[in-house]
Amino acid sequence: MKTLGEIAAFVGGELRGDASVWIARIVHPSAAKGKSDLAFVLSEKAAALLNDGQIANAIVPAGVEHSSSANLILVSRPRLVLAQLTELFERPVHAPPGINHLAEIDPTARLGQNVAIGPFCSIGPNSVVGDNCRLVSNVTIGANVLIGTDTLLHAGVRVGDRCEIGNRVIVQPNVVIGGDGFAFVTREPGSVESVRQTGEVKSFNNEVVRIHSIGNVIVEDDVEIGAGTCIDRGTLGETRIGKGTKLDNLIQVGHNVTIGENCLIVSQVGLGGSSKIGHRSVIGGQSGVPDHVTIGNDAVIHAGSGITGHVPSKTAMIGIPAVPLREFMEREVKMRRLPNLIRELKQQIGTLSDKLNSLFPPQGS
Amino acid sequence: MKTLGEIAAFVGGELRGDASVWIARIVHPSAAKGKSDLAFVLSEKAAALLNDGQIANAIVPAGVEHSSSANLILVSRPRLVLAQLTELFERPVHAPPGINHLAEIDPTARLGQNVAIGPFCSIGPNSVVGDNCRLVSNVTIGANVLIGTDTLLHAGVRVGDRCEIGNRVIVQPNVVIGGDGFAFVTREPGSVESVRQTGEVKSFNNEVVRIHSIGNVIVEDDVEIGAGTCIDRGTLGETRIGKGTKLDNLIQVGHNVTIGENCLIVSQVGLGGSSKIGHRSVIGGQSGVPDHVTIGNDAVIHAGSGITGHVPSKTAMIGIPAVPLREFMEREVKMRRLPNLIRELKQQIGTLSDKLNSLFPPQGS
Amino acid sequence: MKTLGEIAAFVGGELRGDASVWIARIVHPSAAKGKSDLAFVLSEKAAALLNDGQIANAIVPAGVEHSSSANLILVSRPRLVLAQLTELFERPVHAPPGINHLAEIDPTARLGQNVAIGPFCSIGPNSVVGDNCRLVSNVTIGANVLIGTDTLLHAGVRVGDRCEIGNRVIVQPNVVIGGDGFAFVTREPGSVESVRQTGEVKSFNNEVVRIHSIGNVIVEDDVEIGAGTCIDRGTLGETRIGKGTKLDNLIQVGHNVTIGENCLIVSQVGLGGSSKIGHRSVIGGQSGVPDHVTIGNDAVIHAGSGITGHVPSKTAMIGIPAVPLREFMEREVKMRRLPNLIRELKQQIGTLSDKLNSLFPPQGS
Repeated sequence: MKTLGEIAAFVGGELRGDASVWIARIVHPSAAKGKSDLAFVLSEKAAALLNDGQIANAIVPAGVEHSSSANLILVSRPRLVLAQLTELFERPVHAPPGINHLAEIDPTARLGQNVAIGPFCSIGPNSVVGDNCRLVSNVTIGANVLIGTDTLLHAGVRVGDRCEIGNRVIVQPNVVIGGDGFAFVTREPGSVESVRQTGEVKSFNNEVVRIHSIGNVIVEDDVEIGAGTCIDRGTLGETRIGKGTKLDNLIQVGHNVTIGENCLIVSQVGLGGSSKIGHRSVIGGQSGVPDHVTIGNDAVIHAGSGITGHVPSKTAMIGIPAVPLREFMEREVKMRRLPNLIRELKQQIGTLSDKLNSLFPPQGS
Repeated sequence: MKTLGEIAAFVGGELRGDASVWIARIVHPSAAKGKSDLAFVLSEKAAALLNDGQIANAIVPAGVEHSSSANLILVSRPRLVLAQLTELFERPVHAPPGINHLAEIDPTARLGQNVAIGPFCSIGPNSVVGDNCRLVSNVTIGANVLIGTDTLLHAGVRVGDRCEIGNRVIVQPNVVIGGDGFAFVTREPGSVESVRQTGEVKSFNNEVVRIHSIGNVIVEDDVEIGAGTCIDRGTLGETRIGKGTKLDNLIQVGHNVTIGENCLIVSQVGLGGSSKIGHRSVIGGQSGVPDHVTIGNDAVIHAGSGITGHVPSKTAMIGIPAVPLREFMEREVKMRRLPNLIRELKQQIGTLSDKLNSLFPPQGS
Repeated sequence: MKTLGEIAAFVGGELRGDASVWIARIVHPSAAKGKSDLAFVLSEKAAALLNDGQIANAIVPAGVEHSSSANLILVSRPRLVLAQLTELFERPVHAPPGINHLAEIDPTARLGQNVAIGPFCSIGPNSVVGDNCRLVSNVTIGANVLIGTDTLLHAGVRVGDRCEIGNRVIVQPNVVIGGDGFAFVTREPGSVESVRQTGEVKSFNNEVVRIHSIGNVIVEDDVEIGAGTCIDRGTLGETRIGKGTKLDNLIQVGHNVTIGENCLIVSQVGLGGSSKIGHRSVIGGQSGVPDHVTIGNDAVIHAGSGITGHVPSKTAMIGIPAVPLREFMEREVKMRRLPNLIRELKQQIGTLSDKLNSLFPPQGS
């Protein structure tokens, strides 16, 4: 419970109304019920609900019009205020400190101060788990793993041998860090090689030989990894997720991938082996990046894009195959115009033909 | 073991043959071996196998021709009969009643009658698990979770704090219910905002601020959730899966999504944050729905579609970007015709040109 | 530790330099530091690093030019040599032999010699786990499961009742084998059926009836399954993964799918129910194969393809909808030419028109 005054101060907003009101919940305007609900108005559409008189307290973007007599906090960048509010009202996962009696910790593992190790977690030999880390339940930490401080591993997370995870990392449930890479080779040149060279399937994968993954995964500080995401270990070296980068759910990160700092990668993206993603790049959901391809810094890849080659820094890409946004727009316009253009040409030809026919009537007519 | 007569009565089919035959297995016609196998013929192609004389008993769609002398049950909607048969011969998952000695139940949790709690399951404080629920093994139930009656949670399912699951829900292995949403904001307008406004990357995500997820997930009665699917919790409010809806494997359900009743959503679909899916809609595999987009009731989205805007009720959609099926077909036809159209125009121009040249020969010829 | 001479002999390469040098690590040329690092040079680009003088020992493709005085092993098919090297320097997962005191083995289960059953693994009644199998941790084996010898199940793997897994199989973390198929039917013909017949949504899925999955999954010898991949059981019969086939991460394998031998299927592919994949076929990442479709032997499906019908053997396919590679290339060329073609036609019409106008000036001019 916080007062409206405290909240206004915390988010740096302008209070119009009673600063002493106690707030119990932040809610969408359509869910606001009583005197202790604070409605969070993000859009102009939601602001219309303010006019109903059901809302006692609201956070509203400055400049949005309405006729409400509610207690208001006016703010300038509402989505940032939402982040602040959820921090204020954060409800951390249930993970009581201490080591559950049904956890299995190798005697050579070292645990920091104030850790929470839930039931059915195991920690392998020589692994290190830093201060204030929380392993919620059913978490598997292999051998020789290093985990920094204040890191949160939700239920069902798997961290393979020799992987390293930094400080303040959040890993959602059922994430896999350090599965083996998908790396195989045929003894003789195989079908894919023949297609690359000739456009046709002329040789065959009669035997498939495994390339073992003897590398690891390094997850830097302040990274977040979404539920069900899988990050493969490097073949010889490392797969690296840069500081501050956020991965959504069900993402595939192939072996030897390098992701820079502060990237945002949306759910179900696939990053092929040895691909490199620059700093601060954004990749929309379900996009694919092939093996060995480089995406520059500050690229913005639209959802559902099929990248086929290197992407320069500060480029917005879209489509399958993906092209720069401007090119995509121009081509779309061009293609849409084609049927009309052809109709016009047909008319012009008809006009010419009529004129010629009227001047010089075809024989026999 | 059931007799052919019992089976015919159960599925409402017409028996032609010996009602007293004992049936041990329902099999594909190609796998039928002995006197106690009942071949299930779904297609005309499969019906050809009836002529081989290997099949002693068969269920056949009325009207399909064959020369078999097998004991037959004639039915009118075979796929519905398949559902009935699999109910009759259902082989429920091994989940013995009682609480396994290696389960960890918080003393404040409340369990209903006749529950089955398998090994390495944990149930957090104040959570409620209703009568006849089965938690197969390695299932994690957080704090303050509500689960109705007759619900089945397979191995490795994770249910986060404060989530609610209804009655008769089936959750396949390694599903995550209640991971945190993928919600971040930059302090200043970021790269995606600049692309939206200008088509170019003009500002940068130098700092990424986390929006915590303090909401929950509500899974209504009779829902089924496929293996590996991840359902994020709402930011402030709820993410909701409507009564009777069926989700396939490896689906991403973003924060604050609302799915209506009786939907069928096929594997690897991605539903962006705050998207809304109407009742009885069908979404084909690997399709994507962006953030904040609404799909109406009874929509049918073809597999692999890239939805880009609101979809009206009762609309069949297809393609990337997705358009109504009829429009897609027309455009396909139009585009395929273009090269021919242009060839025709070329010929017409040639004819005109020849005529003009023969009437007025170019100078110098 | 191996000597350079031993390594050269093992990979069948030509040694140029000191055979007695001890090698501790295989590294990418950019990571080579000391006298006991062996740099593995796969590409000509990487070979440039040889000229820096930092590399003491290297494996180099025969014929690549450089000025290095390092100890060298010259090889002819470097990627195959990489496979051999990673075998030589393989670092197997930590999985100590024996049965962990926090594992739960049903008394009727049978375990072979020299098995490793880690913490929080459970094995159901009548299941068999063969010699030398390793279950790393938190692995769930249901009832009546058969597992061959030398098979490795990483942390969090779920194997459902009655499934069968062969010898030398490797299953990465959090894989689900034997989830229920996504199989439902409406009592009356539903929306999808009406779209198929009429192109429009004319009937509605008012009730959805479950078809239970009473079949199983069979994983043959030498298969590998990537992290988070989900393989559904057959409805009546089996879902089968053929000998030697390798599946990458987060793949969806629907009920009753049959995959042949030695296939390579890249991450996030979706295989619809009852689809059949021939031997030695390769399917690129994020591709989709619809229900009941057959892919022949030795097909090569490009990443991101949307298969819509049967694919003949030895065919390279690409695109959405997927077409043979050659056809795709021709069509691409044709479509790109269209705008230019139309511009040319316009010019020709203009020329004709000018000529006609100069000969017969329009009235009034």
